[in-house]
Amino acid sequence: MSDKKIILITNDDSIEARGIHFLVDCVKDMGDVYVVAPESPQSGQSSAMSVNKPLRIKEIAGYASAKAFTVNGTPVDCVKLALHAILPRRPDILLSGINHGSNAGNCIIYSGTMGAVLETCMLGIPSIGYSYLSHSPSADFTYTKPYIELITREVINNGLPKDICLNVNFPKGELKGLKVLRAAHGHWSEEYKEYIDPHGKPFYWLTGAFVNEEPDADDTDHYWLSRSYVSVVPSRPDQSAIDTIPEISEKLEKA
Amino acid sequence: MSDKKIILITNDDSIEARGIHFLVDCVKDMGDVYVVAPESPQSGQSSAMSVNKPLRIKEIAGYASAKAFTVNGTPVDCVKLALHAILPRRPDILLSGINHGSNAGNCIIYSGTMGAVLETCMLGIPSIGYSYLSHSPSADFTYTKPYIELITREVINNGLPKDICLNVNFPKGELKGLKVLRAAHGHWSEEYKEYIDPHGKPFYWLTGAFVNEEPDADDTDHYWLSRSYVSVVPSRPDQSAIDTIPEISEKLEKA
Repeated sequence: MSDKKIILITNDDSIEARGIHFLVDCVKDMGDVYVVAPESPQSGQSSAMSVNKPLRIKEIAGYASAKAFTVNGTPVDCVKLALHAILPRRPDILLSGINHGSNAGNCIIYSGTMGAVLETCMLGIPSIGYSYLSHSPSADFTYTKPYIELITREVINNGLPKDICLNVNFPKGELKGLKVLRAAHGHWSEEYKEYIDPHGKPFYWLTGAFVNEEPDADDTDHYWLSRSYVSVVPSRPDQSAIDTIPEISEKLEKA
Repeated sequence: MSDKKIILITNDDSIEARGIHFLVDCVKDMGDVYVVAPESPQSGQSSAMSVNKPLRIKEIAGYASAKAFTVNGTPVDCVKLALHAILPRRPDILLSGINHGSNAGNCIIYSGTMGAVLETCMLGIPSIGYSYLSHSPSADFTYTKPYIELITREVINNGLPKDICLNVNFPKGELKGLKVLRAAHGHWSEEYKEYIDPHGKPFYWLTGAFVNEEPDADDTDHYWLSRSYVSVVPSRPDQSAIDTIPEISEKLEKA
């Protein structure tokens, strides 16, 4: 058996996105790369999985430095099927991205990119999501490469703390350094554009801008991204708020 | 202006599910109830939102004790549109469920029921998800009613800690009491059933059983659900693992 590492790569922008090709190029010399990505864009799919439809796997030719497959589902579907039916063994690392668009702040909760990362993290596989603060399909990822190499190599060699994955975001342009941070809290404003259809009935299309509720907090990702630093947010799939159990127990168990 | 509370109710099983009707009945005397639910089942949709399609709102007749609407999207779409275009003002509480099926343990991460709860929690609205450990469309929710009344009333009157929502699960049958707990860690086994289509090509359908990795941990939801207790898991949308920042910073910032 080869002792080469197995690197599983997925994303939520689909197999055709420039970001996933760039990511493959960054890490192709670190192991055997398997790309298992959605056949169509899956932005905003969070940890959604396909419960009520058949899934198919299609092998894709033309990736020089990776075996490549598509799945007709979400990023979580891709990862689950990769483990179930594609990979020769459990992968040594899962990489997701590079996402065309930010997953900083609360965005992680909607992110298909990070949905895949949380999925493999729950299985004990070291997992990293990479996102870039531009939605442009022709985004220039050049400056991200040394950081992707550094972070990926560190995690392949030394792993991550138990039950922890990484949410890495890159600002546009030249980079001043890297900071390990927490996610900034915020919300979206003006979330829908409203239209009237030809029959006079309204419909709504999601839009909106992120409003950072703590712009001065220098321990957050948004703060340093706006200052040209790479942000790394260690993230935990388990959302149990253990610190609040005594207070809530006092109110509900004794009521 | 009326000083009656506004109660927003959604789910992921669709407006036709028995569970959401039962939930409306439990709380209808506590305020003005607005139901805004998916027009079709959305199980496993997590915090997914519809990025690339138009959304429509349809008012539904026939709910005696609530104003009712459907949205052609996910639970998160329902909640976002309710706030944007349906409710007369910000609601005093969001209830989601009663889900037909467990959202205990790691299930929260895939749950559309809890996706809606996390959404309003991030906006500072007190938010509770209710789920029942049976997928049966004709599930008998009778025993859950006093607990739903107790928990909802407590949260309407006294709120919840900042940035915390509740994930409440009910076992089947008579209930011995209520415990405030953390989510048990686990994974799914035998996740796909494999088929061959009439043309000889394989396809896959999601299935699988939850494997509890810590069956003896008496501070977890699965432990007490199997002993006929209601489980309440305080949950936090923010997944930042702040406690691990120093360790990861040591490795990455100084590399």
